Amino acid sequence: MTAGSGASKALLFDVFGTVVDWRTSVAAQCAVALPPHVDSYAFADRWRSLYQPAMEQVRSGARDFTRLDDLHRESLRTVLSEFEITLPDEEVSALNFAWHRLEPWPDSVDGIGRLKSRFIVAPLSNGNISLLLDMAKNAGLPWDAILGAEAARAYKPTPEAYLRTADILGLAPHDCTMVAAHNSDLAAARDCGFETVFVRRPLEHGNAQATDLAAESDWTYCVDSITDLADLLGC
Amino acid sequence: MTAGSGASKALLFDVFGTVVDWRTSVAAQCAVALPPHVDSYAFADRWRSLYQPAMEQVRSGARDFTRLDDLHRESLRTVLSEFEITLPDEEVSALNFAWHRLEPWPDSVDGIGRLKSRFIVAPLSNGNISLLLDMAKNAGLPWDAILGAEAARAYKPTPEAYLRTADILGLAPHDCTMVAAHNSDLAAARDCGFETVFVRRPLEHGNAQATDLAAESDWTYCVDSITDLADLLGC
Repeated sequence: MTAGSGASKALLFDVFGTVVDWRTSVAAQCAVALPPHVDSYAFADRWRSLYQPAMEQVRSGARDFTRLDDLHRESLRTVLSEFEITLPDEEVSALNFAWHRLEPWPDSVDGIGRLKSRFIVAPLSNGNISLLLDMAKNAGLPWDAILGAEAARAYKPTPEAYLRTADILGLAPHDCTMVAAHNSDLAAARDCGFETVFVRRPLEHGNAQATDLAAESDWTYCVDSITDLADLLGC
Repeated sequence: MTAGSGASKALLFDVFGTVVDWRTSVAAQCAVALPPHVDSYAFADRWRSLYQPAMEQVRSGARDFTRLDDLHRESLRTVLSEFEITLPDEEVSALNFAWHRLEPWPDSVDGIGRLKSRFIVAPLSNGNISLLLDMAKNAGLPWDAILGAEAARAYKPTPEAYLRTADILGLAPHDCTMVAAHNSDLAAARDCGFETVFVRRPLEHGNAQATDLAAESDWTYCVDSITDLADLLGC
């Protein structure tokens, strides 16, 4: 992808952290759903910390492909137990849907909408389809299609997550660009032949963020927002 | 689904014939791509006539799930041979993409856009994802997600095509409504627990159309256009 050349045909977005501010959104919903003494940010961080280990069970082959909603629910029960909180089943399910209602970063809706005029825009997220669909309707994210782990039946950073997404689109990997706030996601995508865009999101993990503060490789582009990417690509 | 009650959460659309006028669109592209003596409508009709037999190979279990683009290409080669036309491979592939560029009926874009304000709107089509995505971008169809045979890995009217689509959405079948111009599609969807909307499309097969001219059962609703459905549902 060269600036303004439009050589890439599809921009495929990581979502949690790149397009939406999961931490603030989940903490806000925990603050409403959980007893007042609970530290909502600590709860959200602990819940999120079980995300990679849960997917690793699938990536390793120890369990069949399982949707993120189900992994999230299992992790939520673990964290509730650690925090010694008891909730009725229906409240557990309702809180689990916090991930369907994440708020976008301020530039996401505008940036993706502008990029859509020249590129296919779709999530390539580990979120399941209904999670991403509900999020898009709530937030106004104008995706062309909802792709990612459930469509590919593989969790990032497994190569199949990227390669099957390109195949579903009928595109060669070099016609696809991964857009993400995480260096590891971009490294895995580049290994599959994708172009790469690093979006700096220094507040994903709050003020104390220590990871992914800067590009750690020579990604195709490095930007501070999705609207900056739209500017760069002439959209 | 009761009028205006919004009890159904997702409106799932058949596409070929219901949302787009495949016959006129394919014939127009055949007229450009094929020698002038060829009857473009006859060619389009013959190509389409191989659609159900091709999917039946998958539905019967005789072959693994195969995307519609690939089935269409095989059928196209058959029809070219029957019409004694020789085309270079790249022109066969280009003509096969006629199905990615179908024009919508005049009410489709407006109707789906209005319905999107209150319902999840998505194709539940036998078309593959990239076919439906290209079509949506060309025609401006504002889907929330692109579902159907490829996501469900089953061709309609196999029950799994409907049931897995509801499951992907996290919805019970009775929260889903199938919208189609074909009585057989609606019958299969209703057998799975879906609500049903019949859209009359008396010109899908041209002036001589003999099938699906009227509702053949007591579908939930029967309308003359997708904008009529939007009116009926108060969107």
